Amino acid sequence: MDKPDLRHKLVAILAADAVGYSRLMSVDDTATVASLDQARAVFRESIEANRGRVIDMAGDSVLAVFETATEAVIAALAAQNRLEGLDADKAEDSRLIFRVGVHLGDVIEKADGTVYGDGVNIAARLEGLSEPGGITVSEAIRSVVRGKVRASFDDEGEKSVKNVADPVRAWRVRGNDSLAPSGVAQAALSPSPRPSLHL
Amino acid sequence: MDKPDLRHKLVAILAADAVGYSRLMSVDDTATVASLDQARAVFRESIEANRGRVIDMAGDSVLAVFETATEAVIAALAAQNRLEGLDADKAEDSRLIFRVGVHLGDVIEKADGTVYGDGVNIAARLEGLSEPGGITVSEAIRSVVRGKVRASFDDEGEKSVKNVADPVRAWRVRGNDSLAPSGVAQAALSPSPRPSLHL
Repeated sequence: MDKPDLRHKLVAILAADAVGYSRLMSVDDTATVASLDQARAVFRESIEANRGRVIDMAGDSVLAVFETATEAVIAALAAQNRLEGLDADKAEDSRLIFRVGVHLGDVIEKADGTVYGDGVNIAARLEGLSEPGGITVSEAIRSVVRGKVRASFDDEGEKSVKNVADPVRAWRVRGNDSLAPSGVAQAALSPSPRPSLHL
Repeated sequence: MDKPDLRHKLVAILAADAVGYSRLMSVDDTATVASLDQARAVFRESIEANRGRVIDMAGDSVLAVFETATEAVIAALAAQNRLEGLDADKAEDSRLIFRVGVHLGDVIEKADGTVYGDGVNIAARLEGLSEPGGITVSEAIRSVVRGKVRASFDDEGEKSVKNVADPVRAWRVRGNDSLAPSGVAQAALSPSPRPSLHL
């Protein structure tokens, strides 16, 4: 049914955006561009290590799609965790801090790698709802990944999304360090053993 | 991260099962097996026409996975609609009627084509909750497909699932004939034009 250059696919979608990027650029553009390059590398590595594909890194934003919801959330947790470490030595107001949103949906992938769909729109909206340095996911993501990632979910309630008829229930995700020795970030971010993926 | 013979993937899952299959077999096994063969052909055609893959057709059950949530729901509506037509000339109590459940989740696909995951478990549970001849889907499915299929969704509330910690919100799906001329089943089952898939 698909045209040869269009492919419909159910994917998990990660959207990220820097907080106060324009302000930081106006204060110190050289340092901010260097921070952005570092952050982009962190996102790319975290995404690709979890079988994700970077669709776009225009300006201070990141858009990626994943084969599984679980890996999208693990990549988001890994990226935020590593970014927090990167900027630890910088003054609070000069840090490049990202919001991240994760959603899932049926999208259209074009042969050139671009992705379209209201799921992308909703992922970006969830990103806008997240705290600086945080991650917000949809109910659909939470229902798939709970029990599969070492994280807890705080209910943020139903949120309206521009151009989308029904509200989306949003959940704040926090990596659950209590399940791993404190400071062992990678362990905390690993998926739990996968028995829950089996019948 | 995956082993070569295992692949983690976000998919939509369709589970179907015949109502009263054992009773029908005990009454008239020849007629029931003929009905089952017909029904299997209908499921296979509806699934494959929507880029789905039949995983298993053991006994009177059907398990299939899809590239998109939208196509899984369209296949379910198409199959139930065609099955209703097939049996129209039979006595009420000799019809082979199916329940269908549709869910989505991260599953493990083995190289031999089998699929594992608690999403499969939940799809089967939703199937058990559906009315004979009906379709029940999860909140995750509804959130992805609403606006993309000509169907309406009735809230069935939260349902517990064996071996799954949190309840799953279930929705009954009805093909929305009011959007297409009555009796034009295929038209009613087509996805609506896809502007909602675009940003």
